[in-house]
Amino acid sequence: MKNYQIIIEYDGTNFSGWQVQKTDLTVQGIIQKVLKKLTKKNIIIHGSGRTDKGVHAIEQSAHFKTNYFIKDSKNFIKSMNFFLNKYSVSILSIKKKNTLFHARHSATERTYKYVIVNRYGSLVLDKNRAWNIEKKLDVDLMRRAARALKGKKDFSTFRSSNCSAKSPIKTIKNVRIINKNKKIEIFFISRSFLQQQVRSMVGCLKYVGEKKWTIKDFKFSLFSKLRKNCAPPAPASGLFLYKVKY
Amino acid sequence: MKNYQIIIEYDGTNFSGWQVQKTDLTVQGIIQKVLKKLTKKNIIIHGSGRTDKGVHAIEQSAHFKTNYFIKDSKNFIKSMNFFLNKYSVSILSIKKKNTLFHARHSATERTYKYVIVNRYGSLVLDKNRAWNIEKKLDVDLMRRAARALKGKKDFSTFRSSNCSAKSPIKTIKNVRIINKNKKIEIFFISRSFLQQQVRSMVGCLKYVGEKKWTIKDFKFSLFSKLRKNCAPPAPASGLFLYKVKY
Repeated sequence: MKNYQIIIEYDGTNFSGWQVQKTDLTVQGIIQKVLKKLTKKNIIIHGSGRTDKGVHAIEQSAHFKTNYFIKDSKNFIKSMNFFLNKYSVSILSIKKKNTLFHARHSATERTYKYVIVNRYGSLVLDKNRAWNIEKKLDVDLMRRAARALKGKKDFSTFRSSNCSAKSPIKTIKNVRIINKNKKIEIFFISRSFLQQQVRSMVGCLKYVGEKKWTIKDFKFSLFSKLRKNCAPPAPASGLFLYKVKY
Repeated sequence: MKNYQIIIEYDGTNFSGWQVQKTDLTVQGIIQKVLKKLTKKNIIIHGSGRTDKGVHAIEQSAHFKTNYFIKDSKNFIKSMNFFLNKYSVSILSIKKKNTLFHARHSATERTYKYVIVNRYGSLVLDKNRAWNIEKKLDVDLMRRAARALKGKKDFSTFRSSNCSAKSPIKTIKNVRIINKNKKIEIFFISRSFLQQQVRSMVGCLKYVGEKKWTIKDFKFSLFSKLRKNCAPPAPASGLFLYKVKY
């Protein structure tokens, strides 16, 4: 059996998320379908993590094991993309890995990017790919609040009630906010995240940015470890799985 | 007569450029049509400059004179966008200006952004909005070549044969190249540009990046002032009118 890693870009708008489902269109589902078409084999791919309905990926990583031999990876990618591009999915690379490599378990660092377009006037270029907030946000306040997120902490406040993780404790390595020409990009780096953690944190940072919350309120919400103290999570459309490191 | 300035975002993919034409869909044409629908008046809008077929705008600026009184600009924008959004055009602001303001003549600085996605695998998230170059580009070499573009120069090499400007002499205030996660963004700042100047410069910078040209070759092309020494211009899809200053 060979073990292959693939890197995948997708627009999540028309998908019911990453994970394969019986009836709905999912990213994992459509890639497995195309692999079956090309290799005549049933191949199961394992993603670095699930992305929710409407969430995008700039570089999702996945692996699959097969006894099918991929001779020319560039040609194989071209064939896959011939079928996948109309679904807004693109394979960027295929690499042979040792048998121990696991897209989820071997990952040491994940980066998510959340995009806010802070202006009046409905989105065109970032339609379905950002959160349009009309009220001017105070990005400096958001940066100061975001500092409280760094480090090893109990993130229960930012955890979806459906989250299946054993522990609510995660270590956020960095949060970086870039503000340029009305586009606010927030990068979150951690080994792993709880379900809806990023969108929940962004929802709370937005409350700080629009001065509905003080930084003290933000910290109270975080340290209370209570889901009920979380602001409404940011919409899926602004969220991108940006990079997975091993 | 009131003089109004509007800021406009658009995806140029399905337009035959900015300038109104008899039959083809253009950005200026569709905005004028919507203004007519809302005000019952024939209004001519004047853009800060024309963008070619397929070129996008993050913040195009235009003005129009009318005796129609816009009571509530936010409501007026909402009504315009109700009709414009399906064409991938969005009005971001409307401001009353003094009668001397002219979107083209009063502009003191224009910024264009050119986006290259430097990787294998067809584009999904940047489809129609970037130039996909598969061969790895040496961005440092491109940066060094770009320095030669700064300042007051004869840009005949980078000038389309259709260009109607009186003089080929322009002053480029700055060229900045940002390279992040396989996305190369090149910003060009000048009071004004010749027709196809940005796409021509990017085409030549790409030759340097892929080492088809040395920096010396690049300078030879620039200083020759001959169109025939220009590399093929970069495709329209990667070009964005980014900002217009007054």
